[in-house]
Amino acid sequence: MRVVLLRHTPEPEVTIAAAARISTSPLPTRHLMEKEGQEEAARLIDRLINAGHMSPLEHSSFTLSLEGISRVTSHQLVRHRLASFTQRSQRYVRMSEPKFVTPPTLSATPELRARFEKGARASFDLYIELVEAGVAEEDARYLLPSAMETEVVMTMNARELITASGLRLCPRAQWEIVSLFEGIKAEVARVAPTIGKHLRPKCYKLGYCDEFKSCGLFPTLKEMTKTV
Amino acid sequence: MRVVLLRHTPEPEVTIAAAARISTSPLPTRHLMEKEGQEEAARLIDRLINAGHMSPLEHSSFTLSLEGISRVTSHQLVRHRLASFTQRSQRYVRMSEPKFVTPPTLSATPELRARFEKGARASFDLYIELVEAGVAEEDARYLLPSAMETEVVMTMNARELITASGLRLCPRAQWEIVSLFEGIKAEVARVAPTIGKHLRPKCYKLGYCDEFKSCGLFPTLKEMTKTV
Amino acid sequence: MRVVLLRHTPEPEVTIAAAARISTSPLPTRHLMEKEGQEEAARLIDRLINAGHMSPLEHSSFTLSLEGISRVTSHQLVRHRLASFTQRSQRYVRMSEPKFVTPPTLSATPELRARFEKGARASFDLYIELVEAGVAEEDARYLLPSAMETEVVMTMNARELITASGLRLCPRAQWEIVSLFEGIKAEVARVAPTIGKHLRPKCYKLGYCDEFKSCGLFPTLKEMTKTV
Amino acid sequence: MRVVLLRHTPEPEVTIAAAARISTSPLPTRHLMEKEGQEEAARLIDRLINAGHMSPLEHSSFTLSLEGISRVTSHQLVRHRLASFTQRSQRYVRMSEPKFVTPPTLSATPELRARFEKGARASFDLYIELVEAGVAEEDARYLLPSAMETEVVMTMNARELITASGLRLCPRAQWEIVSLFEGIKAEVARVAPTIGKHLRPKCYKLGYCDEFKSCGLFPTLKEMTKTV
Repeated sequence: MRVVLLRHTPEPEVTIAAAARISTSPLPTRHLMEKEGQEEAARLIDRLINAGHMSPLEHSSFTLSLEGISRVTSHQLVRHRLASFTQRSQRYVRMSEPKFVTPPTLSATPELRARFEKGARASFDLYIELVEAGVAEEDARYLLPSAMETEVVMTMNARELITASGLRLCPRAQWEIVSLFEGIKAEVARVAPTIGKHLRPKCYKLGYCDEFKSCGLFPTLKEMTKTV
Repeated sequence: MRVVLLRHTPEPEVTIAAAARISTSPLPTRHLMEKEGQEEAARLIDRLINAGHMSPLEHSSFTLSLEGISRVTSHQLVRHRLASFTQRSQRYVRMSEPKFVTPPTLSATPELRARFEKGARASFDLYIELVEAGVAEEDARYLLPSAMETEVVMTMNARELITASGLRLCPRAQWEIVSLFEGIKAEVARVAPTIGKHLRPKCYKLGYCDEFKSCGLFPTLKEMTKTV
Repeated sequence: MRVVLLRHTPEPEVTIAAAARISTSPLPTRHLMEKEGQEEAARLIDRLINAGHMSPLEHSSFTLSLEGISRVTSHQLVRHRLASFTQRSQRYVRMSEPKFVTPPTLSATPELRARFEKGARASFDLYIELVEAGVAEEDARYLLPSAMETEVVMTMNARELITASGLRLCPRAQWEIVSLFEGIKAEVARVAPTIGKHLRPKCYKLGYCDEFKSCGLFPTLKEMTKTV
Repeated sequence: MRVVLLRHTPEPEVTIAAAARISTSPLPTRHLMEKEGQEEAARLIDRLINAGHMSPLEHSSFTLSLEGISRVTSHQLVRHRLASFTQRSQRYVRMSEPKFVTPPTLSATPELRARFEKGARASFDLYIELVEAGVAEEDARYLLPSAMETEVVMTMNARELITASGLRLCPRAQWEIVSLFEGIKAEVARVAPTIGKHLRPKCYKLGYCDEFKSCGLFPTLKEMTKTV
């Protein structure tokens, strides 16, 4: 898996802060933007996020290439509706190299890993055979395992990155999508450290775990109230 | 594949027409709704769609169960962002019965079909073996082919049903999603015949084909203008 | 102001619960829906909301007519993007009766009320004069005060009703939109009591106030942690 | 009115083109992006738009400050749901300078203009009186005319800019929002000439007028077919 930040709104944190200030300032945003410093912007963004005033965070967006993720993960990922996705098509692009994502629980045990890889490889070989027998790529791919690698270009704004990370970095999420969002967080943090810091499991913002059962990171609300 | 309409806004066409009339009438919508007849509603909806005034069509929505579709198709389907989806999870539900969607180009040739089914079955058997060896369902499923059947509950309003059908009933779309939207059209048409009629390839509304190359149903705009 | 529930998904809570069960059940939704009882549905919906698993709540939607709200409030209302709105147009419908929304802080003092009403009335009279002098309604209305009444038909699903009510029933919100959402809550609760119950300020779900300063209903997270 | 482009995705057209290419290319997007030239990007974007393949156009977005628009126009503008808005609040910011938008049909006739300005000014003066008598800004503003100027910061991606301009640059739209989108088009065209070119009434893309009645720019589909 490889996550690369391709493009982003220039000065993403200054942009958000200056836009936020307009609602209570009589100055035009273009002046607010010139005056805004990175440090004050960071402080304001912290306050906005803590108070749940998230809408100004939509003014900065990030375009990332997500390479080498499985179709298990791309299928989960595109459920986020407040984002834009372009995905490599299995309808038109013939797979030449069989690249698979192997779950760590399998790769940890040589024997399991071998069976997994042999099975995945056999499916791929049959895919190639069918294509060579004249079956269209879009139909032969029905055989391909979900482990097959794909690539997605994703554009997401800072608000949705925080919401999505809140869910996808939760230890309840599946290992591959957790790992994907760790990659996203690292890339975003390079250019927007305050936003990057807030890409974390939702319990950090909530102050407790709202899942049916806590992983231990934070107590549930019931457990927290009990302690008091 | 089986498509079943589970729920829908009562009197979906009357609802849309009465809501549409509010923008130019001084009467309250509750009176407009009582007075609205099915026939006048149908006529108004035709005019709204032809003029591209689509927003009133959002006031009626349809909840459908889509059973026995492949994960190829569910992955395409959830790209529609103006809809609500709940999907059977492969993370938690253990597959007991290997049900696959077989593309018609394969099922038409006994020999190809046999190879496809044998390959899909082998992947499934390995999935079961891995699960029985203690691998979590969510990891073992990386081996499962895209042909595996899934079920989705989908709620979509009439406007988005028209937009999505415009794309998915186009002969350019893949056979399985075409077939899915034919099922959706049949179910919606039972209770909302005017809307059902407008669930068709986008070229019917456009008056020409805007794809790179026409399938022959309608000429492209260039071809149409040339004739004149 | 008058809020009327015009239409809703039949059996809205059973619909949501049955859709939610599909993710972990091998049964088709149509069977789940037949078996689902109102009481079990209510219990499941409570658990879903408490755990923040909100997506199944999108499968039931509610269409309401909102009559006699000011344009101050309609302007705030249409900022909710996960909803569908049709509004009476001031471009085409000539206002014949000057109906205004008067803020309670003004109507409480006879002298202030008289000045407010005289001012609003004067603007309206000038609007009529300009229209009679041949100015188009769409231009003359630039003079109309924000207090002018309008009507909106709104369709919103249960998930967004909960999110929007969390913000709009907060004592921080303006009195008119609070009053509007109280009317919406009463109407929804008639047919969906569990969902109706969850239409309340966001602090009830959070367990604390996340605004910059609490109104006293709940302590802030900082205050709550301090007590411990 | 003043429209200023504050921020945009760097190299907006190259970004869109490289993202679009991924669906049919085996190369990773980061390589596609390095290789992409402005001219080939422009050609591809033209082809995508003509074929209605709009989703890659979501990968570039534009943040604009829209100063000095009336609340008539801001109310229309925020109906676009695929965009992000931050607006100066009349709840908290006290209006000190009465700035109004005057419709050209009024400003063209000195006598009408005088009556309009006198009326608007009288409303504003009463607003100030009420505020000075202790009425909260958020309530006193109910008297303010829709002509009052406001400022909005808007972020919209290229796809939605094309859709919104298709509607808002149509001669059927109201003069002020037409003028606003002409300003937006000019600003976007400076940094993204191909996208800027496609910000125009929807009839240019359709090839005909789909409104109930044509303004004369293009014939309706019925009229066009008749000619043939």
